[in-house]
Amino acid sequence: MLLILQEKATPKDVDALVQKLMWMGFDVHRTVHENKTSLSLVNSSQNEIKAEEFEKLPFVEKVLQFSHPYKLASREYQKKKTVIDINGVKIGSQELAMMVGPCSIESKDQIMECAKIVASQNVKILRGGAFKPRTSPYSFQGLGEEGLRYIREAADKYGLLVITEVMDGDQIELISKYADILQVGARNMQNFSLLKKLGKSDKAIFLKRGLSATYKDLLMSAEYLLERGNQNIMLCERGIRTFESYSRNTFDVAAIPILAKLSHLPIIADPSHGTGIRDIVPAVARASLAAGCDGMMIEMHPTPEKALSDKDQTISPKEFEELMDSLRIIGSAVNITVG
Amino acid sequence: MLLILQEKATPKDVDALVQKLMWMGFDVHRTVHENKTSLSLVNSSQNEIKAEEFEKLPFVEKVLQFSHPYKLASREYQKKKTVIDINGVKIGSQELAMMVGPCSIESKDQIMECAKIVASQNVKILRGGAFKPRTSPYSFQGLGEEGLRYIREAADKYGLLVITEVMDGDQIELISKYADILQVGARNMQNFSLLKKLGKSDKAIFLKRGLSATYKDLLMSAEYLLERGNQNIMLCERGIRTFESYSRNTFDVAAIPILAKLSHLPIIADPSHGTGIRDIVPAVARASLAAGCDGMMIEMHPTPEKALSDKDQTISPKEFEELMDSLRIIGSAVNITVG
Amino acid sequence: MLLILQEKATPKDVDALVQKLMWMGFDVHRTVHENKTSLSLVNSSQNEIKAEEFEKLPFVEKVLQFSHPYKLASREYQKKKTVIDINGVKIGSQELAMMVGPCSIESKDQIMECAKIVASQNVKILRGGAFKPRTSPYSFQGLGEEGLRYIREAADKYGLLVITEVMDGDQIELISKYADILQVGARNMQNFSLLKKLGKSDKAIFLKRGLSATYKDLLMSAEYLLERGNQNIMLCERGIRTFESYSRNTFDVAAIPILAKLSHLPIIADPSHGTGIRDIVPAVARASLAAGCDGMMIEMHPTPEKALSDKDQTISPKEFEELMDSLRIIGSAVNITVG
Amino acid sequence: MLLILQEKATPKDVDALVQKLMWMGFDVHRTVHENKTSLSLVNSSQNEIKAEEFEKLPFVEKVLQFSHPYKLASREYQKKKTVIDINGVKIGSQELAMMVGPCSIESKDQIMECAKIVASQNVKILRGGAFKPRTSPYSFQGLGEEGLRYIREAADKYGLLVITEVMDGDQIELISKYADILQVGARNMQNFSLLKKLGKSDKAIFLKRGLSATYKDLLMSAEYLLERGNQNIMLCERGIRTFESYSRNTFDVAAIPILAKLSHLPIIADPSHGTGIRDIVPAVARASLAAGCDGMMIEMHPTPEKALSDKDQTISPKEFEELMDSLRIIGSAVNITVG
Repeated sequence: MLLILQEKATPKDVDALVQKLMWMGFDVHRTVHENKTSLSLVNSSQNEIKAEEFEKLPFVEKVLQFSHPYKLASREYQKKKTVIDINGVKIGSQELAMMVGPCSIESKDQIMECAKIVASQNVKILRGGAFKPRTSPYSFQGLGEEGLRYIREAADKYGLLVITEVMDGDQIELISKYADILQVGARNMQNFSLLKKLGKSDKAIFLKRGLSATYKDLLMSAEYLLERGNQNIMLCERGIRTFESYSRNTFDVAAIPILAKLSHLPIIADPSHGTGIRDIVPAVARASLAAGCDGMMIEMHPTPEKALSDKDQTISPKEFEELMDSLRIIGSAVNITVG
Repeated sequence: MLLILQEKATPKDVDALVQKLMWMGFDVHRTVHENKTSLSLVNSSQNEIKAEEFEKLPFVEKVLQFSHPYKLASREYQKKKTVIDINGVKIGSQELAMMVGPCSIESKDQIMECAKIVASQNVKILRGGAFKPRTSPYSFQGLGEEGLRYIREAADKYGLLVITEVMDGDQIELISKYADILQVGARNMQNFSLLKKLGKSDKAIFLKRGLSATYKDLLMSAEYLLERGNQNIMLCERGIRTFESYSRNTFDVAAIPILAKLSHLPIIADPSHGTGIRDIVPAVARASLAAGCDGMMIEMHPTPEKALSDKDQTISPKEFEELMDSLRIIGSAVNITVG
Repeated sequence: MLLILQEKATPKDVDALVQKLMWMGFDVHRTVHENKTSLSLVNSSQNEIKAEEFEKLPFVEKVLQFSHPYKLASREYQKKKTVIDINGVKIGSQELAMMVGPCSIESKDQIMECAKIVASQNVKILRGGAFKPRTSPYSFQGLGEEGLRYIREAADKYGLLVITEVMDGDQIELISKYADILQVGARNMQNFSLLKKLGKSDKAIFLKRGLSATYKDLLMSAEYLLERGNQNIMLCERGIRTFESYSRNTFDVAAIPILAKLSHLPIIADPSHGTGIRDIVPAVARASLAAGCDGMMIEMHPTPEKALSDKDQTISPKEFEELMDSLRIIGSAVNITVG
Repeated sequence: MLLILQEKATPKDVDALVQKLMWMGFDVHRTVHENKTSLSLVNSSQNEIKAEEFEKLPFVEKVLQFSHPYKLASREYQKKKTVIDINGVKIGSQELAMMVGPCSIESKDQIMECAKIVASQNVKILRGGAFKPRTSPYSFQGLGEEGLRYIREAADKYGLLVITEVMDGDQIELISKYADILQVGARNMQNFSLLKKLGKSDKAIFLKRGLSATYKDLLMSAEYLLERGNQNIMLCERGIRTFESYSRNTFDVAAIPILAKLSHLPIIADPSHGTGIRDIVPAVARASLAAGCDGMMIEMHPTPEKALSDKDQTISPKEFEELMDSLRIIGSAVNITVG
């Protein structure tokens, strides 16, 4: 049950209402979104109370009941697609939000060259990892803050936004100094402790679907962020783990229209991790756009063969340019402007 | 190991060579394809023999070694994409092969109406099931031969080809009287007894990927058909079974470019079974075309709500027309002509 | 809805009742089980009819409603575990039904030696394949009828029952001349055409769970057999396909108690296919017994290294003896007699 | 490549050797284990160096090469099973390490009663969650430090060890004041940031397999802990995510013997999460012991129906006692002492 309160309700009014509801036997979660307070009620003690009764309470504008456990992330809660505006780059609009760059930031020269290529295709967002979640403790773990400085500098030179991954709550403050969008990796999608902290951040969050996360799981993790007050959340389909071992992951293209049906949050496709196979990436990228994604994350490196991580799924500058060309044509078919 | 023999080798020459090879300790499978005989060698007795030695044998034109167990289905065996020509309809060409119709043939009127709608969109192939593989013995099992008569009549009236499912070897003869393409369902993909019989058929075969079949499994099943001499094989991606239960299946869009890389056989997408959700079908259909499929199978019914089977994934005539319109635009972006 | 009729109802009475029900708008499936006729009703036309109304119909003894689509296979339909008695070997009783032997029958000597080893451990059922479902058309496909003759002769010499696989409806008659139990392989679990034919057989059926079959799917396939009148059905857990590729399959040990809860049919474990790893088979066999299985199928070969199929998962005579010893101890802990 | 150095090598000797190796083009990770230093070498620059060459380096006792990416966790590195001794409770020994208690610590009374029941069965380890990873932000999140105080007090009263979950690096210090074993949940198995911090802890770590983690993934996460110097690691099989939705997870019983073959670390089974179904838990617990697990974690609550979390998979005190009785018998069959 979700109570959306009238805008005129003062903090004091809300306090009084919350107390009343707790006294009625509810746990109450309070969220503020666009000047309106929502109260989420759960774990009611036995007594069943009907929606009509809540509508009679003071300052209650609307009562929403849900057949699923996510609320703020749902289309029922918000019909209009969320548009995240970062310095004029609008994610969730009719313009495809491309995020392109290397898996790892490896050197100042490397990220500078990437930024140049990215900008040359009119892409607005530069990706690159400074803190890398690696399966093996013996693999390259990223350049850390040094890498963050390089990517910020490169982005600033070419007028780009920066997206990079945050792996732990204690990195949020540092990374927020350099990045515009904070990425939560697939393996941290249910790191609830991290989600709670990011829910208090004023940065946009890029939330990747876990390797075996259902749509509901993903939306519940988004709910953690929304419930703490952060409204700028993107959902990312990046492939799931199945029995097929030829590809690194199985890209679930239907997730794009399904999530768009269930939720108002922008949907981003990641064909690089979604397939793990360099020469399959462009076809899956085209498919994602045809399926209606709002944005796309692509791993690109000046010399993919020499990349310190993810080299098997990273495309070259030339492949990137060709991909952009084909995306522009597909885009015209689905009313999306591409770069 | 596959030996491709020179065209001039007579049956007698081949016999002699086969005997020699068996004497050398090999099991030999003989296939004829476009006037050339191939000999597939397996289960060599201990002694290792090098490719060069085979090249010295009489009538041997080429020796192919494979790192995977499928041979005739592979791109190494045949570089050029297979084009299946049935009465002028060319599957595997630059023209998208659409196959549209109801899940089950329910009555003469119903299939006649479907055929009319299908033809009105310039689609050339009518689908419809007469023998239905149903999970429950208590569900509608299809009209049988009566249904076959109806669909043939409807197809003939509108100049269409017929594709329908064969569930058992003892139905092949009957169904072949009415249909142009024989469909093998996902649950029969590894019914090797059926595959062996269909390998001897002169009809084109539409082979659906099993619910948990890897790419290799699918290609090995195609190999059963090819090895018996039937060269007109299509592969169909129709969704796989994963942990996600919101959709009936998870459509593996990357299978389209991956299979096209591994094999020369035409690839067909089935977004209806691939998702199981009516209003998601069009987006996944568009994605399939953008990913490069050679054809598409879509369940359509004059009144989907009243369909005797698969009603949740069947689109209406109006949705079908809208889909065709959007496919035409996407097609222009990937150089495929649509209807 | 299932109507169980009184024993006194004559065929004529049943005919009359069926006509009445069809006139009321139902599809009716008739099954006879231990002198009682059951009528299964489905696809009712709109009008909803309550259970009480059916109880008033003539000759109706009991009306059963189910929350799941399987009926005859369910515990609600039959509380008591089914015991299949074949020449005094009782499957589903307190005695563990062991089925042991090679993957493929390779020669008369080989199967004779297997039978001797099997009998020496007081095991009563000999397994061995004559028609083999192989992923590759180039692999050994079995000895066919020659193999059937060998296994029957070996079994007769040592007083054993024979279980072997049937891959196609047109093999049923032949195989039934030699075998006591007909096995349906995992890849044929939803070969409904084969199931319908086996439902008319008087042989006991050993039904293997498909690689991606849910419990419900498996029970629905059993329902096909039961509905045609064959009551002697065993269910076999043989591992499912998951993302884990270290083992051939993931053995679902919980399937044993869960299927025993849902169904009255005997449950057999197949740790050989369930793991695909020879030295893991004994631990999983012990686990299966501790979880409460009614029987077990184990691949054993005089010299596993030389087996023509499944050599990686086949245990040796010595490993078989050690396994039997440990099973006897576990058996005493769960009140099951072992060999 | 792993170099194990002679015990006599002083820190200064090691420093010199590391410098030499880095100069040769290696990344070097240093670990100390039972007075011996190991150097793990990775990312060699092009030049290939043979094992023999390393053996000639000063202070090198042994050179190990691995065909898999985990090293310190492998049986090749350490043949003998690791035994973790915490105040005389030996995990990995011939005595089954039972860990029993409620999902969440709910009150002082509740955990006190649990401890009493646990101790009455001669179980030595009390489990209970204070910080709970919940899929929904609206669900009960645990009592926090208050809960930790309660469980410590209860454990001390009955002479038990405490195991509880740590969700974030910033909780380690606090939880370590109260707990003897720190649990890493399935959803945090690849929270590498947390693993790195726990690798420096002097507490034993209980590492749960992720929902879609392969054996290799699990062992690589253990490697993160071992590589930082923490040698007291347990691996826990708790079910994986598959297509089967009847049960919460699919318990992979073969993981027990397989992990025991690959690794020297103790293996714990969690049949509660592994099935999610209360009345299936005992059968799967028995199966786990028969498969050779070193310990078991079971959710038990004085009144399962009223538990604030996981009530569907929590057994009652009576079911717990019956389970212990049956485990004692199975244990005698596999030479494991139970309570």
